[in-house]
Amino acid sequence: MAHIEFAEGLPGIRGPLAFSPATTKPLGDLVEVLLNGPHTLTPAEREMIATYVSSQNDCYYCQSCHGSTAAQHLGGGAAAYKLIDQVKQDYEAAPVSDKMKALLAIAGKVQKGGKHVTTDDVERARRHGATDKEIHDTVLIAAAFCMFNRYVDGLATWQPRDPDIYREIGKQTASLGYARRDWKKPLAAATTK
Amino acid sequence: MAHIEFAEGLPGIRGPLAFSPATTKPLGDLVEVLLNGPHTLTPAEREMIATYVSSQNDCYYCQSCHGSTAAQHLGGGAAAYKLIDQVKQDYEAAPVSDKMKALLAIAGKVQKGGKHVTTDDVERARRHGATDKEIHDTVLIAAAFCMFNRYVDGLATWQPRDPDIYREIGKQTASLGYARRDWKKPLAAATTK
Repeated sequence: MAHIEFAEGLPGIRGPLAFSPATTKPLGDLVEVLLNGPHTLTPAEREMIATYVSSQNDCYYCQSCHGSTAAQHLGGGAAAYKLIDQVKQDYEAAPVSDKMKALLAIAGKVQKGGKHVTTDDVERARRHGATDKEIHDTVLIAAAFCMFNRYVDGLATWQPRDPDIYREIGKQTASLGYARRDWKKPLAAATTK
Repeated sequence: MAHIEFAEGLPGIRGPLAFSPATTKPLGDLVEVLLNGPHTLTPAEREMIATYVSSQNDCYYCQSCHGSTAAQHLGGGAAAYKLIDQVKQDYEAAPVSDKMKALLAIAGKVQKGGKHVTTDDVERARRHGATDKEIHDTVLIAAAFCMFNRYVDGLATWQPRDPDIYREIGKQTASLGYARRDWKKPLAAATTK
């Protein structure tokens, strides 16, 4: 049971988002810019960073939603979902670019705490072509998911375990993005289970 | 030296805020609602939660700015600054309300990770009169400062050590709040040192 009373049928962050409209807009605007706005990193790459940090923070809801969104951006097939699992388990061995490996390494350091990021981490990313903006955004995406993960788990939100729900969330998010969504609307899949 | 190139004379988060205008507005709007908007917790109480979490994350810039802002909301005298130090060092022994102690305990758990918050932590806060909104906002303030602290330290921003700078920042923030600020403008105190 959640620590405070949320509307029924809203999984994960959707309960708190519906509970607190005044904070929902800035949170939605932030994640839209970071993960879905125009960028030299693809939405799939940025969703992978969010997914990896969420898995390191052991947030089931966030890693499932953002992992599924990344996979949907990559076509939504079994190979895409497998790639996301590989990134979570061992990104250094996963078939992603050297730049992405270096950015995921920075994100992993940020998850532990900001001071863990070293000059060597940043130089590695630069050597593989990362720009200042890509490094900045990687740090902020990782930092933001240290917030979102704590928001979701710190209120003990309902986190269903049915993979179909996250497949549906991934499809919706990959097509609609994060801004201008109605977070108060229960998911069809979530309410029929 | 910061990990990426920021404009000169901008301490702490002001470098990244000036670097990335697209994310500055949602971040400013979020912190304005959480710390400075209308609320049953005073701005000083909410700044104390932000300060405590920032000190637990060992973020010098954030704990100094928000600690000073809290102290300025409380009149800005030596006793106010001393109270903030007490809250950081041992809030259970500090002269704050039982409700604030219970909320600071929740914030401290969120800092460690969302799953650390227990039903007992939440019941303690309720017993001392905390509402669902106060519990929600405490979790989100704590989570948000796990983001801000990582943003500031993860990019190795410049964090001057002169207490006068933070006194000035505290005064400005206590009077102006967080929205509608020009983060690109160097602080007078910071640039003359």
